[in-house]
Amino acid sequence: LQIMASKVADFVKKIGKVAEDDPRKVIHGIKVGIALTVVSLFYYARPLYDCVGGNSIWAVMTVVMVFEFTVGGCLYKGFNRAMATLCAAALAVGIHWIASKSGEELKPIILSASVFLLGSVATFSRFIPAVKARFEYGVIIFILTFSLVAVSGYRVDELLALAQQRASTVAIGICICVLVCILICPVWSGEGLHLLVSRNMEMIADSLEGMLLIELCAIKEGAATGNGSPSAKLQGYKCVLSAQASENSQANLAKWEPPHGHFGFRHPWSQYLKVGAAMRECACCMEALDGCTHSEPIQGPAYVKKNLGNACMRLGAGSSKVLKELAISLKSMRKSQKLGLLIEEMKDAVQEVRGALESFAVQLIVPPNSTSAEGATEEKQQSAVAAVSIKQLMETMPAITVA
Amino acid sequence: LQIMASKVADFVKKIGKVAEDDPRKVIHGIKVGIALTVVSLFYYARPLYDCVGGNSIWAVMTVVMVFEFTVGGCLYKGFNRAMATLCAAALAVGIHWIASKSGEELKPIILSASVFLLGSVATFSRFIPAVKARFEYGVIIFILTFSLVAVSGYRVDELLALAQQRASTVAIGICICVLVCILICPVWSGEGLHLLVSRNMEMIADSLEGMLLIELCAIKEGAATGNGSPSAKLQGYKCVLSAQASENSQANLAKWEPPHGHFGFRHPWSQYLKVGAAMRECACCMEALDGCTHSEPIQGPAYVKKNLGNACMRLGAGSSKVLKELAISLKSMRKSQKLGLLIEEMKDAVQEVRGALESFAVQLIVPPNSTSAEGATEEKQQSAVAAVSIKQLMETMPAITVA
Repeated sequence: LQIMASKVADFVKKIGKVAEDDPRKVIHGIKVGIALTVVSLFYYARPLYDCVGGNSIWAVMTVVMVFEFTVGGCLYKGFNRAMATLCAAALAVGIHWIASKSGEELKPIILSASVFLLGSVATFSRFIPAVKARFEYGVIIFILTFSLVAVSGYRVDELLALAQQRASTVAIGICICVLVCILICPVWSGEGLHLLVSRNMEMIADSLEGMLLIELCAIKEGAATGNGSPSAKLQGYKCVLSAQASENSQANLAKWEPPHGHFGFRHPWSQYLKVGAAMRECACCMEALDGCTHSEPIQGPAYVKKNLGNACMRLGAGSSKVLKELAISLKSMRKSQKLGLLIEEMKDAVQEVRGALESFAVQLIVPPNSTSAEGATEEKQQSAVAAVSIKQLMETMPAITVA
Repeated sequence: LQIMASKVADFVKKIGKVAEDDPRKVIHGIKVGIALTVVSLFYYARPLYDCVGGNSIWAVMTVVMVFEFTVGGCLYKGFNRAMATLCAAALAVGIHWIASKSGEELKPIILSASVFLLGSVATFSRFIPAVKARFEYGVIIFILTFSLVAVSGYRVDELLALAQQRASTVAIGICICVLVCILICPVWSGEGLHLLVSRNMEMIADSLEGMLLIELCAIKEGAATGNGSPSAKLQGYKCVLSAQASENSQANLAKWEPPHGHFGFRHPWSQYLKVGAAMRECACCMEALDGCTHSEPIQGPAYVKKNLGNACMRLGAGSSKVLKELAISLKSMRKSQKLGLLIEEMKDAVQEVRGALESFAVQLIVPPNSTSAEGATEEKQQSAVAAVSIKQLMETMPAITVA
């Protein structure tokens, strides 16, 4: 019993943590409750004793299915549902009409064949990337509505009256959803994407800084590279590696959202994906770099560490500063004044590391200490990728800043 | 008009490519068509002129919503739908009974309040990770069913009869789905995961091999590292980086599948995720290594390339062989005889590279050429991670092989 109790307590703690981390999730739950209550009140006004389920089904179903966490998701599903219902209903009524003209014998054959054909084709179309990204939900609703209308054995004139009723209830459901979603504490996909990307950039900068600090301690002590406890800050870059899926879905939904806040019409959402991809490359380098600091160092004389090590430190610090400045600039959507200067500093640091390495290679004075050399080449490369990403960022920044 | 025509042609080509790449997608479309036709035929047997939509709605809706690409997905949704419908219906009937006892005045208040409360709580519960992974669809259906029953203004005895009918139609829908899904060319999530993981491992090995080849050419020519065209083979590791989401979802669905083929009951699906994570670390190293081969090389004397370069080549080739052997062993689910030998070879190569680096560092004979040193440290690290992943793999292999 005690084990049970402790498990329940753990579970409750977890739930509390979810709520604490993002109170918007609690608000979302309340919003869904409100929307459902509004719909049900709408139908208490004239009770539906008359028919099984009747039309109230459609309004309730619409609210449950269409209401999403973000405004973009809600609009995407609402639009898809409305369009798919209309198209499928029109098509199904048309086929019913054709079938009814061709006599009682052929009718079930025509209807079954059309259900089979359209069901197959529509289901397959869900696998086409362009359809999947924008209309997947619509296709499901299309199949659903078409099959329902085709299966129901109504006459065409009955169908038209029915279609009108259903369309109006679906429309009511969608309106309630969209209104509640936008008016009560709206959650915007676009804003989420914006914050996610700029926070990820900060995380990489923080991780890089943390790593440098550990390295610095190791060099000062003249000891091997740090086996220090990996702090949470240091592991920040790992989130960046797994952020791709959520970036993609948020960018897809953000395209459905109307202008809001700082984000104008036709805000270049897809640019965020490019920035995200560049950051994932950075994070990959961080991962490699992290592997280096944890691997057993190759033995070598300690007296050469300073020369290369210092250059690396400056480079790492420079890269980190550039990333932080970029994150600030991205967050505020303003061009940074200091950025050009910082990038120049970083480039100088790259040249310095390069120079240090070459001097070791050519002049045969002192062999590079392998531990710091490892750090050096890695960091050089880190900076190279950072430079690449910065170039990409520089291309996207004006677009974002202007927009 | 010509532009239109060419666009349409492009689109058709894309569709053709989707179908060609995975014919199972076409078969899936046909399967959905078959399931829908079976359901509709079921209802043509006794036409439903009597009531608006009636119960046929539930069977058709169940087929459209529950039918998924993989058997795991289908079972997951079917189970969730069945359980959620039952729970929600029972709960709603219970609340209806309580409400009907408390008089006409209080009834709508109690019902609305319960819809609001359960809707909010259930929606929030979708954000709890444990619920999200296994019961998300069930929660949606729970909210839907509960709201529908609560909103409909039936008397309790009517509700019970209705509930029975609906449960039977939903059951028919789920049975048709599951039968069609399993009997006609089944697509198993587990098999997909198995293939995905072993193919990804092969891809990394191929990429590593391709990279070595380019490097080898560069060394033989005595030229800088290759700027050769990045072949498709070489870029294979990029797929591995973005495979996380699909691995997770497939592993989740695989847990719902019954034993099939080589996969027994309680096959350790979650181990595949660990292997996948280890491979993503490898792929990260590949990314860093790829960055090195593309970055401008640091100038250095050419006559030292052979010494370190050869050691690196052996190491890279060794790692690639180990990965290939592992992939074969994973695919066939047998313990490989050669694997131990190959790993020993690879470890020797690691020591060789280490030795070469240390000799440069300590003996001051020849400075490591920076280009190959870069390759060397990276590859060492690559191999270190490979070794780590291999250790992890070794732990998971017995489990998979035994299972």
